[in-house]
Amino acid sequence: MSRNPCRVEHDFLGAVQVPRDALFGAQTQRALENFPLSGERSIGDYPVLVEALLRIKWAAAAANRAAGFLDAEVAGAIVRGARKLIGEGAGRHFPIHRFHGGGGTSANMNANEVLANRAEELLGGRRGQYRRVHPNDHVNLHQSTNDVYPTACRMAVIASWPSLAQGLERLGQVVRDRTSRFGDEPRVARTCLQDAVAVTFGDLFGGYRTALTRAADRIARDVDQLHTLNLGGTIVGRPQDAPESYRKQILPRLREVSGDPAYRLAPDLFDAAQNPDGMVAVSSGLELLARALIKIAKDLRLLSSGPEAGLGEIRLPAVQPGSSIMPGKVNPVIPEFVVQCCFQVIGNHAACAGALDHGELDLNIWESVLLFNVLDSMGLLANAANTLAQRCLAGVTVVPATNRRNADSIIPLLTELVKARGYSAVSRICRESGGDLQQIREFLKKEGWI
Amino acid sequence: MSRNPCRVEHDFLGAVQVPRDALFGAQTQRALENFPLSGERSIGDYPVLVEALLRIKWAAAAANRAAGFLDAEVAGAIVRGARKLIGEGAGRHFPIHRFHGGGGTSANMNANEVLANRAEELLGGRRGQYRRVHPNDHVNLHQSTNDVYPTACRMAVIASWPSLAQGLERLGQVVRDRTSRFGDEPRVARTCLQDAVAVTFGDLFGGYRTALTRAADRIARDVDQLHTLNLGGTIVGRPQDAPESYRKQILPRLREVSGDPAYRLAPDLFDAAQNPDGMVAVSSGLELLARALIKIAKDLRLLSSGPEAGLGEIRLPAVQPGSSIMPGKVNPVIPEFVVQCCFQVIGNHAACAGALDHGELDLNIWESVLLFNVLDSMGLLANAANTLAQRCLAGVTVVPATNRRNADSIIPLLTELVKARGYSAVSRICRESGGDLQQIREFLKKEGWI
Amino acid sequence: MSRNPCRVEHDFLGAVQVPRDALFGAQTQRALENFPLSGERSIGDYPVLVEALLRIKWAAAAANRAAGFLDAEVAGAIVRGARKLIGEGAGRHFPIHRFHGGGGTSANMNANEVLANRAEELLGGRRGQYRRVHPNDHVNLHQSTNDVYPTACRMAVIASWPSLAQGLERLGQVVRDRTSRFGDEPRVARTCLQDAVAVTFGDLFGGYRTALTRAADRIARDVDQLHTLNLGGTIVGRPQDAPESYRKQILPRLREVSGDPAYRLAPDLFDAAQNPDGMVAVSSGLELLARALIKIAKDLRLLSSGPEAGLGEIRLPAVQPGSSIMPGKVNPVIPEFVVQCCFQVIGNHAACAGALDHGELDLNIWESVLLFNVLDSMGLLANAANTLAQRCLAGVTVVPATNRRNADSIIPLLTELVKARGYSAVSRICRESGGDLQQIREFLKKEGWI
Amino acid sequence: MSRNPCRVEHDFLGAVQVPRDALFGAQTQRALENFPLSGERSIGDYPVLVEALLRIKWAAAAANRAAGFLDAEVAGAIVRGARKLIGEGAGRHFPIHRFHGGGGTSANMNANEVLANRAEELLGGRRGQYRRVHPNDHVNLHQSTNDVYPTACRMAVIASWPSLAQGLERLGQVVRDRTSRFGDEPRVARTCLQDAVAVTFGDLFGGYRTALTRAADRIARDVDQLHTLNLGGTIVGRPQDAPESYRKQILPRLREVSGDPAYRLAPDLFDAAQNPDGMVAVSSGLELLARALIKIAKDLRLLSSGPEAGLGEIRLPAVQPGSSIMPGKVNPVIPEFVVQCCFQVIGNHAACAGALDHGELDLNIWESVLLFNVLDSMGLLANAANTLAQRCLAGVTVVPATNRRNADSIIPLLTELVKARGYSAVSRICRESGGDLQQIREFLKKEGWI
Repeated sequence: MSRNPCRVEHDFLGAVQVPRDALFGAQTQRALENFPLSGERSIGDYPVLVEALLRIKWAAAAANRAAGFLDAEVAGAIVRGARKLIGEGAGRHFPIHRFHGGGGTSANMNANEVLANRAEELLGGRRGQYRRVHPNDHVNLHQSTNDVYPTACRMAVIASWPSLAQGLERLGQVVRDRTSRFGDEPRVARTCLQDAVAVTFGDLFGGYRTALTRAADRIARDVDQLHTLNLGGTIVGRPQDAPESYRKQILPRLREVSGDPAYRLAPDLFDAAQNPDGMVAVSSGLELLARALIKIAKDLRLLSSGPEAGLGEIRLPAVQPGSSIMPGKVNPVIPEFVVQCCFQVIGNHAACAGALDHGELDLNIWESVLLFNVLDSMGLLANAANTLAQRCLAGVTVVPATNRRNADSIIPLLTELVKARGYSAVSRICRESGGDLQQIREFLKKEGWI
Repeated sequence: MSRNPCRVEHDFLGAVQVPRDALFGAQTQRALENFPLSGERSIGDYPVLVEALLRIKWAAAAANRAAGFLDAEVAGAIVRGARKLIGEGAGRHFPIHRFHGGGGTSANMNANEVLANRAEELLGGRRGQYRRVHPNDHVNLHQSTNDVYPTACRMAVIASWPSLAQGLERLGQVVRDRTSRFGDEPRVARTCLQDAVAVTFGDLFGGYRTALTRAADRIARDVDQLHTLNLGGTIVGRPQDAPESYRKQILPRLREVSGDPAYRLAPDLFDAAQNPDGMVAVSSGLELLARALIKIAKDLRLLSSGPEAGLGEIRLPAVQPGSSIMPGKVNPVIPEFVVQCCFQVIGNHAACAGALDHGELDLNIWESVLLFNVLDSMGLLANAANTLAQRCLAGVTVVPATNRRNADSIIPLLTELVKARGYSAVSRICRESGGDLQQIREFLKKEGWI
Repeated sequence: MSRNPCRVEHDFLGAVQVPRDALFGAQTQRALENFPLSGERSIGDYPVLVEALLRIKWAAAAANRAAGFLDAEVAGAIVRGARKLIGEGAGRHFPIHRFHGGGGTSANMNANEVLANRAEELLGGRRGQYRRVHPNDHVNLHQSTNDVYPTACRMAVIASWPSLAQGLERLGQVVRDRTSRFGDEPRVARTCLQDAVAVTFGDLFGGYRTALTRAADRIARDVDQLHTLNLGGTIVGRPQDAPESYRKQILPRLREVSGDPAYRLAPDLFDAAQNPDGMVAVSSGLELLARALIKIAKDLRLLSSGPEAGLGEIRLPAVQPGSSIMPGKVNPVIPEFVVQCCFQVIGNHAACAGALDHGELDLNIWESVLLFNVLDSMGLLANAANTLAQRCLAGVTVVPATNRRNADSIIPLLTELVKARGYSAVSRICRESGGDLQQIREFLKKEGWI
Repeated sequence: MSRNPCRVEHDFLGAVQVPRDALFGAQTQRALENFPLSGERSIGDYPVLVEALLRIKWAAAAANRAAGFLDAEVAGAIVRGARKLIGEGAGRHFPIHRFHGGGGTSANMNANEVLANRAEELLGGRRGQYRRVHPNDHVNLHQSTNDVYPTACRMAVIASWPSLAQGLERLGQVVRDRTSRFGDEPRVARTCLQDAVAVTFGDLFGGYRTALTRAADRIARDVDQLHTLNLGGTIVGRPQDAPESYRKQILPRLREVSGDPAYRLAPDLFDAAQNPDGMVAVSSGLELLARALIKIAKDLRLLSSGPEAGLGEIRLPAVQPGSSIMPGKVNPVIPEFVVQCCFQVIGNHAACAGALDHGELDLNIWESVLLFNVLDSMGLLANAANTLAQRCLAGVTVVPATNRRNADSIIPLLTELVKARGYSAVSRICRESGGDLQQIREFLKKEGWI
């Protein structure tokens, strides 16, 4: 990097060498040096976050303009800059490590600097000049990292939820489709992995659908709560840190700019700065979904175990050879992929959760840990749900022979007999035959009970 | 135990020696032998669970009577037996290890046996006779462990919530009381543990209250969801396993017997047997509350650190000497007790969560792990909330001298100046003074900015 | 309690009413009031901890006597008091909540007070007088909670390990016994739950034994590390807080009193006060063991699934009827009990782990959270291991018919053929027969490959 | 991709279109379609894994050659292919999702295919021809995914450890350097965040160093255990699945090829296939290290809190402006970055741990979850350690004025007095002065105690 031509910028700590062509400025550059990327992810790898930051800056420029704090030209340039960057995709201008300490200051300043330079250019200036548009004085006007970043985090999660919701929807639809094919097929229900009673595949798969819907509803409900923002609360929630005329404008403008009328102001802005539990609640919901999916995926593996020495009641589509050494072997790799993704989601939640109790005093600064784990989990779960639907469940079939043999086992039969004969009577037969299933069957036939 | 006189009972596995005076019977006895208590807790240590089981049996007897499956005498005896046992407290008759495998069969059979024997006695019989009232044929009629036990678990959690809710309410009330005393007292807000802006104690404590209310609301919402029951779903949710006339009666009867009109039937009984995520959702909410309380408790420790070399802005009541060797030392033991209880709640949630993805097929049998961890967590949190309120927060005071000195620090002052002078201008002053705070103060005075 | 006759004691915070007959004193009484028990466990519920505290005090009295800081009479009375209390079992004199804030001060003071009073009585005085023997001046002489309590915690864990180790030993022995019975019985190995190759039960069970041994060795190694103590480090590790002559004596005396020559002084006493990670390392090892046991227990369930519609390759002893409504059903309740205990151990570890990163500065005060979770986990795992050994594995048998049928399935056969024919050739046969297993078998016969 | 020219390859499931220029083949192509990458990481993003796979194949070719199962030309081509690919960096040829189900089959086949094609080319053939060198028949000869992949995972972890070890070493060195500068500076030790006794910075920082060394030793010990391999155990550990002559050669060859003489054969190959707990043990060690680093990082934040209203005993280097709105504010962003990385490590461990108890029967197939979380954690921790050392600790200084004032506080003084006057006497003074610190000081002066 030392060979690249540089410009010099200043902040209150002194001078900083910034690559001459960079759209970002001094503080982004410092952050790049402070937090080595080391192959880990940058902010720019999360376009939903970058876009949310830009929309907030756009809304703030509009609000500051309306309230008379920015002139039309400067505000207009910031807005145009934001729209262009959103249109082009601005990830490459946000190279900072996703974890960067300080509650998101570097991310916010990165957005401020990128937009200041872009707006400066639109007004005829050059990058790094900040003659007409200054990152702090104009782009960040009446904002603090502490209201901008949590707001951007919430917007990013809200923007990411629909694709997971659709994945779950699609998965539910595929389950429904299969149920319409073989839902009436009888199968043996098992409790404690032991034969219990005869049910149908529709009963089992219906349970999957209901569970997935409930898990999705829980997440949807908590994602919706994230519409409660502290934008305008600036540093720690004090009303006096931004003029009332701006504060009246900012949320309406954000609703416009985002196209989402559900954004609303947190009733207690001090609480909002202290406690990001709303994000962790979403993460908890994702964890519950992950655990539900593991259960379903493992069921599919178990029911399709075999081909000869397993339960063998269903057959999953053969999507790839299962072994490098055992020809003919096919593994349930899609359910296994789902389980692996879900383990990761469970881990991501654990990463989040600790960030809550390590918050202190007036501001919880661990928002980045929450955000990126929630976004990663949403991506993993959407991928898992879509893959399970399309490459596994859509092609699942019942194996009639083994399935019927299993469904006709004796314990379900004995349970049916309880209705007519009572528990004690049937129980006595079991005792008298010493638990020998063959003997029980013969007795029942002899007595004409079956 | 070998010296105790015994009676002999039978189940389908053979004969069992039961202590002659035991109200329980053969299967409880087997469970006692199968799951050594080893100093761990028994079902009977959780009266809310025992009571819930008895109420379910009472409701079932009433429903079976109404539907014509039990005669008035037997049903009446079961009901009277249940009422008496509830009145007396029946914990000692439920000595089984709280973990006992099998999805709660032993707990359900313990209830069936205790009630059968009690009812038998009320009808003139003797313990272990089961002449008129049989544990399975009568007390358990049209029920399965798989609908009884999850129902009892939900009832137990619902019954335990109010005392935690009241604890949180009381804690909120105490926070409000203190705020009315010193809420207007200015203090320095800190972000990243660095001085930020001047706020008041009311701002900080108000945030605590809001956060606790939100945490409580989240739990309340998920506890309320537990009113959705699978009672009548018997083994895995099949309608045919209990007659329709009974199924129509059972929930109305349970509403009567429990005095809680909110109980309702799960819309998908198969799902209800497969997925106990509703319980884990409550546990997630308790975990979030625990983490919120840790944050508050640690804040109190930090703000009261000292007495001389710490922040020293508040003083906690001195409830006990803090050291066996340092006289005069007083520790924030109450907040620390709270943190310890909350660590345990976090652990309890981890114990729960894995039980979800280890469920399989038609029934999740790990309900006991969920239940007892949720109950223990509720107890710990209620204890922590009450103790924090009464023995710590109720007596917290502000230490005027140190607090004011801290509130008057320079960073808040500089931040105020930004409003009039702009970020860049104030920032330049900081740069020019090389970050020397004394020099900055002098400059500001000289320029007449303060 | 108000009706009980009381005596008055004083500490630097003022006067305290103590039950007249209590062996404990003012600070224990304060702790009782500060930390409501609420049905949770007290220190006295953990005799290994109480005994460790008493032995430390005994060793300290001996060391102080030898170094000339206590006269023979006082030191002798403390020692005799400690021996008597250990002999009788002193749990009832330690009624404080196991979580009591402050890094264990209340536990240490409880020990100091109980011993001071007992020694005072032995010297002819009365409880609460502290005329000859004072809790702080004599019993606690040259000690701090911060070296006494961590030492007691380590001693308690070391004392609890053998019974878990024996449980695991016994479990391993039972696995070996069963292997000697049916270890040569062939069975089908499964990977990804799909049929793979033919192995024996000895291969599988041998793996269990090796895994359990490794898990035990890991714990043993980390338990052994706990012999490193900070006794003599007093408050935070400063040598000057206890005279050198005492410090030279204390560990030799503790080795004598405990009968364990392995106790040694931590090389960095400041580190020892800051970082209790040695305890969490033990907890990590217990977690790994718990997860290993879950795997084994779930294997046993799976292999014994049926009786007709499952894998049915082994049969577990029928220890109790499995259902309140399905006669003849027998569940694998013992493995399930094991899984439940292990879930709790996983939770206990999660409770521990957070206590590490919430430590701060010169002392980690969360030792109680670590200790009681480790002790509880050791108890749960010992119980689980013994129960699994005695009530399940000792009676497990192979079901020859189903097992042989499964072992003779086709995928193992194809895999054997690879050795003679090569992967490509066998793979081609699979492709050409369209994956139809019957057709493959026929082809192989026709070609004389089998 | 449809526009790209393709070649057709076959496996036992049928024909597959593979991009004509791809070095990989049919099964890699299937895996690409089965496991959508979706922005997540591929195997190729982990060069240590790719290299390990290639070295195993190299060693296997050499072993098969030596044992007479491969001719010199084919074996030589495989070896040369592997060396070239390692030299060039082969990540782009390994595009499969890092989670890909099936215990690593796709990763192993990817390596087999890439090497087969490369070797084929070296022998004059074309990609996809497999005329001379076949992925399964030659490259994978006498191997199974189940021994190759776990071996590669272990090798990858072993290869990644040194850079973390060096990071920790460097961190320890920096701590030592700073200690040599201001280690004798007195400071007040705090327990329970309350003033305790006077120590030095050397005492505190020495504890950091010892704790980090112990954490590193623990990881080193468990990483070293990973040298125990199951290579040669093929599918589930059966000796008969690979000829003895090959098995005798394979580990010596691997030691040669890897340059690491510590690789050894697992004593129980069945256990080795069932139980990957050795990997999770490493992950546990990383978790303990992460928690130790959080503690240290949070200490640095606390000790440097201020600049005026905090403890202010040390000053961290000012690496970037701390706020977008508060000029002059500097935040401890480097310790905060460390904490964030460590939260992620904690999450990564949670993702791992569940994979253990979800293993079943003869093979644990969740190795990918273990591997990538361990590698990611090692990377995060190395980054965190280096960054903390270089950008924070290397420039930390003591703030003499505030630090001395804190060190001279009264509780340390009272504790010193205990030595001369006894606990009771000093305690009485505290009681008599009603806890008023000023009054205590005056009393002590008046009495000539100080």
